[in-house]
Amino acid sequence: MAPSFAINGGFPGTRITPPSDTGRFAAVYSEVQNSRIDHALPLPSVLKNPFVIVDGPQSTAAGNPDEIAKLFPNLFGQPSASLVPSDSAPLHVNRKLKLGVVLSGGQAPGGHNVISGIFDYLQDKAEGSTLYGFRGGPAGIMKCKYVELTSEYIYPYRNQGGFDMIRSGRDKIETPEQFKQAEETVQKLDLDGLVVIGGDDSNTNACLLAEHFRSKNMKTRVIGCPKTIDGDLKCKEVPTSFGFDTACKIYAEMIGNVMIDARSTGKYYHFVRLMGRAASHITLECALQTHPNITIIGEEVAKIETEKMLIQMVETELEKRKQQGTYKGGFKGQSHFFGYEGRCGLPTNFDSSYCYALGYGAAALLQFGKTGLISSVANLCAPVEEWTVGGTALTSLMDVERRHGKFKPVIKKAMVELDGAPFLKFASLRDEWALKNRYISPGPIQFTGPGSDAISQTLLLELDAQA
Amino acid sequence: MAPSFAINGGFPGTRITPPSDTGRFAAVYSEVQNSRIDHALPLPSVLKNPFVIVDGPQSTAAGNPDEIAKLFPNLFGQPSASLVPSDSAPLHVNRKLKLGVVLSGGQAPGGHNVISGIFDYLQDKAEGSTLYGFRGGPAGIMKCKYVELTSEYIYPYRNQGGFDMIRSGRDKIETPEQFKQAEETVQKLDLDGLVVIGGDDSNTNACLLAEHFRSKNMKTRVIGCPKTIDGDLKCKEVPTSFGFDTACKIYAEMIGNVMIDARSTGKYYHFVRLMGRAASHITLECALQTHPNITIIGEEVAKIETEKMLIQMVETELEKRKQQGTYKGGFKGQSHFFGYEGRCGLPTNFDSSYCYALGYGAAALLQFGKTGLISSVANLCAPVEEWTVGGTALTSLMDVERRHGKFKPVIKKAMVELDGAPFLKFASLRDEWALKNRYISPGPIQFTGPGSDAISQTLLLELDAQA
Repeated sequence: MAPSFAINGGFPGTRITPPSDTGRFAAVYSEVQNSRIDHALPLPSVLKNPFVIVDGPQSTAAGNPDEIAKLFPNLFGQPSASLVPSDSAPLHVNRKLKLGVVLSGGQAPGGHNVISGIFDYLQDKAEGSTLYGFRGGPAGIMKCKYVELTSEYIYPYRNQGGFDMIRSGRDKIETPEQFKQAEETVQKLDLDGLVVIGGDDSNTNACLLAEHFRSKNMKTRVIGCPKTIDGDLKCKEVPTSFGFDTACKIYAEMIGNVMIDARSTGKYYHFVRLMGRAASHITLECALQTHPNITIIGEEVAKIETEKMLIQMVETELEKRKQQGTYKGGFKGQSHFFGYEGRCGLPTNFDSSYCYALGYGAAALLQFGKTGLISSVANLCAPVEEWTVGGTALTSLMDVERRHGKFKPVIKKAMVELDGAPFLKFASLRDEWALKNRYISPGPIQFTGPGSDAISQTLLLELDAQA
Repeated sequence: MAPSFAINGGFPGTRITPPSDTGRFAAVYSEVQNSRIDHALPLPSVLKNPFVIVDGPQSTAAGNPDEIAKLFPNLFGQPSASLVPSDSAPLHVNRKLKLGVVLSGGQAPGGHNVISGIFDYLQDKAEGSTLYGFRGGPAGIMKCKYVELTSEYIYPYRNQGGFDMIRSGRDKIETPEQFKQAEETVQKLDLDGLVVIGGDDSNTNACLLAEHFRSKNMKTRVIGCPKTIDGDLKCKEVPTSFGFDTACKIYAEMIGNVMIDARSTGKYYHFVRLMGRAASHITLECALQTHPNITIIGEEVAKIETEKMLIQMVETELEKRKQQGTYKGGFKGQSHFFGYEGRCGLPTNFDSSYCYALGYGAAALLQFGKTGLISSVANLCAPVEEWTVGGTALTSLMDVERRHGKFKPVIKKAMVELDGAPFLKFASLRDEWALKNRYISPGPIQFTGPGSDAISQTLLLELDAQA
């Protein structure tokens, strides 16, 4: 029996501690963590030079526009926005801002970089501004728990994984009383804007807040940022959610290692379950990166309970075949679950740069008075300098669901499209993978040298198909 | 529920397939794998220039020298050997050799590099030589299953993880009949030498084979190489076993990620079990790399059953305290087992270079007619150029154990020494780690840039203590 480790999962109740207590100072960083702190991030060139914001055409909703219009009377139909180069700095620039930022839901690599991006935008384009970080997720807004984010406070978290700079939480701002609390907080802090970093639900909530503040003629604007390792918050304007790239690469490294183990011993059959809620983007991406013999995509087949049950099913079937005399071999299954290991990895170069641009762009949208948009960075196959930056009307991503007899706005989860380029690529190769071992081992994430700037295959295939 | 993966663990019965079938050609390699193939390995300078082999003093045994002398009448007491620079090439050089190589036991990152090292030595110093790889471990020797290793055959495996070039196996050459089979094989192939890449048992077996061949006046020499991710095959002359560095770094990456997850949510307590049989070197190394709150070293305390049982024990204790009114908090445990994920990772720069030198040195020892030695590369804290190369008498590492009334030679497993530098360092820090979160996240293994040439902390501390 191997010796064991017990790792303390933090102290429940003590939801946030200042950096000096959390050990987030360079002296206890690993060499790789240290090297990442000072990694200079490229910015899309539109953000490096004077720009203006150009509105697109009126928008509608992903479904039931009449209901969405009723739910968002002030915001429905508003155009999306694009940042475009301008010869001269617009009037808005250099106005001091007071902004807040909140992390909502499960961790995804790159969250700290979104915050750094917001902060650096304020330093670069609105000197003298203030950025507050709400602690412990949306509850921090409701309870007015926050910290002022300074250059020194943010520094140790630059390009680092985790959400521990201000922590996250899963509370929702839902009831009229909770909206009132949020209202009081942003008024107390005199906020010009709020950035909500979260998944589909959190961005829906961000839009409801934006609508609420607008309906009360408050000055506080709200911008969302697309966060989820699951990859199920995406659309044409938001080609991917952040964290997906890093998490998939971590899982794919482990899967690749296990595959070589399998090929070396010929002894075990490995069954791997991956993190993910409804959508199977992570599984599809990892399959494209590693070429397993069999991959089960939940959108295509009814979902199997667990990797352990799969092993039992194979054992039962082979036992039956043995008794029938049709099978003679052995079978040893090994189960794996890769989940928590990927949510807080050091962000890849892609996630680092992407998140930084998302945050920088979100602050720009707020400075220009935009609200109810989700920060949108696109053209992601091109070099970072050529990425486009803007905001997409959150109402345009929405549909309604009927819950308890009422219409609730929802941003529909982007599932794996069975006629989409990534799935079709997978489907065209899986028969070959099943019989011939075409395993690929992606190896560990690299920050310099070969492979360090590769983007996820899902994203590449989707963008290729759109081009 | 997340979608699942099923990965085929190879086809039992088809123990080896040529590279074109296993997918081991560059076209299906990941970018990082590809970049590693052509990674130029540094060699200790003694191996790059003309050298001679100098014998040390007579050796004895680690314990019970009289019994070891009886078990190894031909080999007991033989000196260890060191390669030292020489002004002119010795006579032996350029003699064509026929060598065999076998992988024995569980995979460890770097095994392919040992084989590359042997092969390249023959190319460089004994042109026209032949290298056979025995397939599927020691069984390949007994059944005379082998493949001739050519430049083309070896190429795709350079600096790659896994043992799939010739696969490994756990069979042992033990009975008189099995020794006879091995004898027939090496005679049939006219072998000048055999390199056995394995752990403590396999190296003991290598020495028994060396003794057997010597006792029969056969020309076949046998050299061992220290392989095991467990790190329990080491001594002053063999400062570490290969694979330990890579495997620990992979586990430490995952532990570091989980730690940041814990710090970000404050929701879960993570319990991690690590691979390892008797010795806890992996756990100690990972603790030194990551600073968990609690670490259980098997050599210090009676071993706990599993990480899941640990969680249950904590739950039971906290339930008791709740009923007594002394505890109010919650507790959510998450269990992890990191094992198979680390055995076949892409070897670190250290393991790549170390293994290459071990193999290159093993071939040199065989060319100079040495037998019953374990390839020994030392001075590992210095740049590779300054590493020392030689061979250590396997009998000098041995003691005897009484099994079924007979003395059996064994190389004693190197356990974690409770008065050794790595454990003392850990012990001096663990109280601080327990209460303050001093987590370190090592991040993914890097092949270039910061952190890429770091060696394991265990090795560093042990070598520092010896200096």
